[in-house]
Amino acid sequence: MRIWVVNPNTTETMTAGIARCVSALAGPTTEITAVTSRFGPPSIESHYDEAMSVPGLLDAIGSGEQTGVDGYVIACFGDPGLDAAREIAAGPVIGIAEAAMHTASHLGRGFSVVTTLARTTGRAAELAQRYGMQRFCLGIHACEIPVLDLETDPSAVKAVTEACRRAVDHDGSDAVVLGCAGMAEMCRVIADEIGVPVVDGVTAATLTVQSLVTMGLSTCKRGEYATPPEKVYT
Amino acid sequence: MRIWVVNPNTTETMTAGIARCVSALAGPTTEITAVTSRFGPPSIESHYDEAMSVPGLLDAIGSGEQTGVDGYVIACFGDPGLDAAREIAAGPVIGIAEAAMHTASHLGRGFSVVTTLARTTGRAAELAQRYGMQRFCLGIHACEIPVLDLETDPSAVKAVTEACRRAVDHDGSDAVVLGCAGMAEMCRVIADEIGVPVVDGVTAATLTVQSLVTMGLSTCKRGEYATPPEKVYT
Amino acid sequence: MRIWVVNPNTTETMTAGIARCVSALAGPTTEITAVTSRFGPPSIESHYDEAMSVPGLLDAIGSGEQTGVDGYVIACFGDPGLDAAREIAAGPVIGIAEAAMHTASHLGRGFSVVTTLARTTGRAAELAQRYGMQRFCLGIHACEIPVLDLETDPSAVKAVTEACRRAVDHDGSDAVVLGCAGMAEMCRVIADEIGVPVVDGVTAATLTVQSLVTMGLSTCKRGEYATPPEKVYT
Amino acid sequence: MRIWVVNPNTTETMTAGIARCVSALAGPTTEITAVTSRFGPPSIESHYDEAMSVPGLLDAIGSGEQTGVDGYVIACFGDPGLDAAREIAAGPVIGIAEAAMHTASHLGRGFSVVTTLARTTGRAAELAQRYGMQRFCLGIHACEIPVLDLETDPSAVKAVTEACRRAVDHDGSDAVVLGCAGMAEMCRVIADEIGVPVVDGVTAATLTVQSLVTMGLSTCKRGEYATPPEKVYT
Amino acid sequence: MRIWVVNPNTTETMTAGIARCVSALAGPTTEITAVTSRFGPPSIESHYDEAMSVPGLLDAIGSGEQTGVDGYVIACFGDPGLDAAREIAAGPVIGIAEAAMHTASHLGRGFSVVTTLARTTGRAAELAQRYGMQRFCLGIHACEIPVLDLETDPSAVKAVTEACRRAVDHDGSDAVVLGCAGMAEMCRVIADEIGVPVVDGVTAATLTVQSLVTMGLSTCKRGEYATPPEKVYT
Amino acid sequence: MRIWVVNPNTTETMTAGIARCVSALAGPTTEITAVTSRFGPPSIESHYDEAMSVPGLLDAIGSGEQTGVDGYVIACFGDPGLDAAREIAAGPVIGIAEAAMHTASHLGRGFSVVTTLARTTGRAAELAQRYGMQRFCLGIHACEIPVLDLETDPSAVKAVTEACRRAVDHDGSDAVVLGCAGMAEMCRVIADEIGVPVVDGVTAATLTVQSLVTMGLSTCKRGEYATPPEKVYT
Repeated sequence: MRIWVVNPNTTETMTAGIARCVSALAGPTTEITAVTSRFGPPSIESHYDEAMSVPGLLDAIGSGEQTGVDGYVIACFGDPGLDAAREIAAGPVIGIAEAAMHTASHLGRGFSVVTTLARTTGRAAELAQRYGMQRFCLGIHACEIPVLDLETDPSAVKAVTEACRRAVDHDGSDAVVLGCAGMAEMCRVIADEIGVPVVDGVTAATLTVQSLVTMGLSTCKRGEYATPPEKVYT
Repeated sequence: MRIWVVNPNTTETMTAGIARCVSALAGPTTEITAVTSRFGPPSIESHYDEAMSVPGLLDAIGSGEQTGVDGYVIACFGDPGLDAAREIAAGPVIGIAEAAMHTASHLGRGFSVVTTLARTTGRAAELAQRYGMQRFCLGIHACEIPVLDLETDPSAVKAVTEACRRAVDHDGSDAVVLGCAGMAEMCRVIADEIGVPVVDGVTAATLTVQSLVTMGLSTCKRGEYATPPEKVYT
Repeated sequence: MRIWVVNPNTTETMTAGIARCVSALAGPTTEITAVTSRFGPPSIESHYDEAMSVPGLLDAIGSGEQTGVDGYVIACFGDPGLDAAREIAAGPVIGIAEAAMHTASHLGRGFSVVTTLARTTGRAAELAQRYGMQRFCLGIHACEIPVLDLETDPSAVKAVTEACRRAVDHDGSDAVVLGCAGMAEMCRVIADEIGVPVVDGVTAATLTVQSLVTMGLSTCKRGEYATPPEKVYT
Repeated sequence: MRIWVVNPNTTETMTAGIARCVSALAGPTTEITAVTSRFGPPSIESHYDEAMSVPGLLDAIGSGEQTGVDGYVIACFGDPGLDAAREIAAGPVIGIAEAAMHTASHLGRGFSVVTTLARTTGRAAELAQRYGMQRFCLGIHACEIPVLDLETDPSAVKAVTEACRRAVDHDGSDAVVLGCAGMAEMCRVIADEIGVPVVDGVTAATLTVQSLVTMGLSTCKRGEYATPPEKVYT
Repeated sequence: MRIWVVNPNTTETMTAGIARCVSALAGPTTEITAVTSRFGPPSIESHYDEAMSVPGLLDAIGSGEQTGVDGYVIACFGDPGLDAAREIAAGPVIGIAEAAMHTASHLGRGFSVVTTLARTTGRAAELAQRYGMQRFCLGIHACEIPVLDLETDPSAVKAVTEACRRAVDHDGSDAVVLGCAGMAEMCRVIADEIGVPVVDGVTAATLTVQSLVTMGLSTCKRGEYATPPEKVYT
Repeated sequence: MRIWVVNPNTTETMTAGIARCVSALAGPTTEITAVTSRFGPPSIESHYDEAMSVPGLLDAIGSGEQTGVDGYVIACFGDPGLDAAREIAAGPVIGIAEAAMHTASHLGRGFSVVTTLARTTGRAAELAQRYGMQRFCLGIHACEIPVLDLETDPSAVKAVTEACRRAVDHDGSDAVVLGCAGMAEMCRVIADEIGVPVVDGVTAATLTVQSLVTMGLSTCKRGEYATPPEKVYT
């Protein structure tokens, strides 16, 4: 079984962090590879960045399809291009917001999301609704740390941890969802600090894809998610 | 006042049809221009097409911004790139699904949508929910005519008309929303045939943008829709 | 094209303010007239006032129908008698809460409503739900200024402005909807002060009616909104 | 304890039918009186009729208040004027749609409504939502018998019964709500015929008012439903 | 008419309090009996307690069926076993949360719930949704007094009263629902103190059952709530 | 890692079928055991059966806790006792309806549920809502085969397959959720027959528990799902 975890921004160091998180999840017959988008924005912090990241993401998935990849993770919390990716991939495709929210819903009455910039909270709310997780999503909070600072700013872990603690207290929630792939490596540290389950979507999505492939399940290729009609693009 | 109606696919003949619809709406001080995307798919009939149309659409809006366009219509019923467009435009941006659904909600208890291919009905349902129009949207129906056949197939008007009639009967609705910019020129004919109000989103969206500019209203540029942070894209 | 903006309370000075707002919207072929209800309450500040204003409103619309008016605005934020008015009018009828909320939904993720007395906030919430705008309506706030004091109390503009500012801060909203026809003339001033789009429903509804008439659209006269059966009333 | 069941149309024979239904419900210390509106429509079959019935209804409740009536039923399935009535009455006020739907929700997973004319089904749906009963309301069906024909047309009982039977089969519902005060006397007969619980709102509302008065409960007179401010009406 | 009010915990003193509340409600032909579960938890303060109370509750209802009881109240605010009880009883079965929330919805725009321990608020929210009362339920608050302390702790009334007052102020609600059968006897005192209607579910449910039996209404015995198939249990 | 899949009915042959399904899922360091409830109903086909199965289920989980089991599956589609089980288990607990619905939501726009008896469809709808899966759940259909006949009736596979095919056609769904643990072994056969993804909750839930344990995630033990207070039960 081969799974690709696609980072839809072009920052290789972020892909490396993702790789560290998911490498431990592979079993004897599973290969999990973190892949960087060949073109697009260096980080995704606006609707514009997100829209512009999608062609690069779809290009990566197209490459994967040519080599028979079994399933994909979209490793950005806006879950960019999810519907389009499901059309072009034979195997399952899961977004990290999707996986994280579903996972957190199993852990109690509701969860808080802690994301990077406040301008991304609207998108997170939209995704919570799309996935049916609105009733579990008790609050969405920003720590106001730009995506790429998460790995370079030594005070970032502490700031995210405090944002998580405040979110849980404010919302009365039973779990925290980390709202950025760049927070993946902080997950255990934060959970230990705040004493409440913390969910990293990169890990959750990778395990979800692995489970789906194990069950032989993938996107239904009849109807809405059938392979798109071939066209000559300008 | 200058308004651009952007066709996010690259088919010039379709833009010409759009132009015919909106030219009559301009007043003495209003200039309404139909614009074709410079690159992207020739028609939008899948999530993949839609995602891949967005960079071309945003490029067009970027050009408009440089010449001081006052407002924009996105002339594809999937309303592709709406959030990103609102971030980069100073003036209002309206999608044709958005405008058509809002307009139809003023005409009775509920409306039916008649779109092209069945695989696009999921997106229409998602938009109805996004705009709060789910409670008015009593059904979404496909006529199974591909977008570009709408202008070339002489039997298309009749087929769309019959689909509208069936939709109204089935849903018990008070209005029909036409689910494709390529149906814009059919609007009056269908309404006369079926005896129920029929809404074309291209016209509705252009008038909505005109009204917003008249009121001096545009997307709030604080918070979620502020101009995106500048970045070096790869 | 002739549009009547009906003030469903009997206070002529308030109608005069409405007239000042809408007169600028008329084009060369459009006549927009502000009309006062012949009987009913001097202001609408309770469910009782609202219910008792409806016969006078319907009487005004009945007069309009006899002279071939093309469309109507109900210029009270409770949108009293909207359904009944749609039954008896041939052309479109729009309430100012309806138009203002729809308009504000185009400007960002969500809006705040600022209304007069706290006792009217329940009705505003009900209307937000009716129009599908509940998901955009992030908060409803009262400034506790009675309707008729809006035009006589010189400190009213400042008080409403401050209520708008607080509402935006509290709700994290992208726009403000003014919750009373008596606030229409304050709209620009408040917007300039608080730096966020502010929507006046009187203007928004008038432009919406104008757009509908331009498109040849009106209430569906089959089914629910057909002309009511004639009866001898006691 | 004195309860008034107000028929908001002006047809005395219909009030007489209502009186026959509720007279049996009075206990030794309870007096239940059916009252006819002094002015308004002879039957309520449109939004227009409904709106125009409200002043007469409120006039009746105003009379009741002067003689110390303890609670009121509004005996029309559109529940006209409910909010305004709650403002002016010291005791509880219950609509028959309100009571019937609440009652039916106790009897199974969901109910069907069978009403008179199809043009009234929109209002019934709106009320189901207002009362939170939307999830229980599995369908709303019209028998297309005008209100006043219910008492004069000898075939009406059979037609309503068949409409109820079809509704239950179609919706898979566990109960029927009769959607008109004029159907009250048919309730037992229909229930016996179709073998499913049938709810008459006139009876249900009267018992609900009786229970509320017994518990010393009434509309909260702080805030939204406080006595309206006194005004000089024109 | 014979009604049983079943206390699904095994604490006789609590049943005695319930009996005091409901005895006054019986009319000349009605007998209302408070019954204690024969086995199960002494109080219900967790999902575990609730689940484990159900067999005892169903055993009590089974006994009632053998003696022809006409209807039942489940006197615990979690409404444990309601669906199962409806399957095995011929007459109506009402939970006290169900009755209290429905009742409170008649009294204004919305209500607050005040319950015992914070860990039970999730269940109350779930019930509000189940009964369609979510839109009326503006807040759920805990006073953090264990169930059995309500009757033994002399300061409990004051603490619950203060929790009710804070809830009304915080939520802007028009009524309070008491979230525990053990608070039933406090109802009048609290209402007098805080000046807002306060609803005790034990009383409300008993009157609801009485009304249903009066109307000849009970759970539909076709479909979901039919008598369960007989089985040999291990 | 040790996972228990608890069959909450007492039929050992059904547990054996469950064991066959899940044994293949265990990795080198994972032990997955199917466990039968010690007491309760032989099959669960009513609210009564479900309620009466919970003490046996909780007893089984209690035993598991004493031997340090890491996570649990509740292998009945009504997900009986889920909340109570989460309170008493240290590790995660997942119901098969919960897991199946979440899993199916990743495969397309929506799914159909095919269950055993029609009387259980109400419970399935309730669970869809509880898990936020209502928007994905396009229909719930019964094949009217009693639970225990699924393993003994040789025509059952064919009947369930046809019910699945009809459900997909009727609902226009992208996946089928099998609504009974007794259908688990049919999953692959049905999927091959109907050409649409089919989800077995037993497998899905086991993999979900495995993923949660891998991530070190479990029910939050602060607040609602904390260990219940100790009590002396009667």
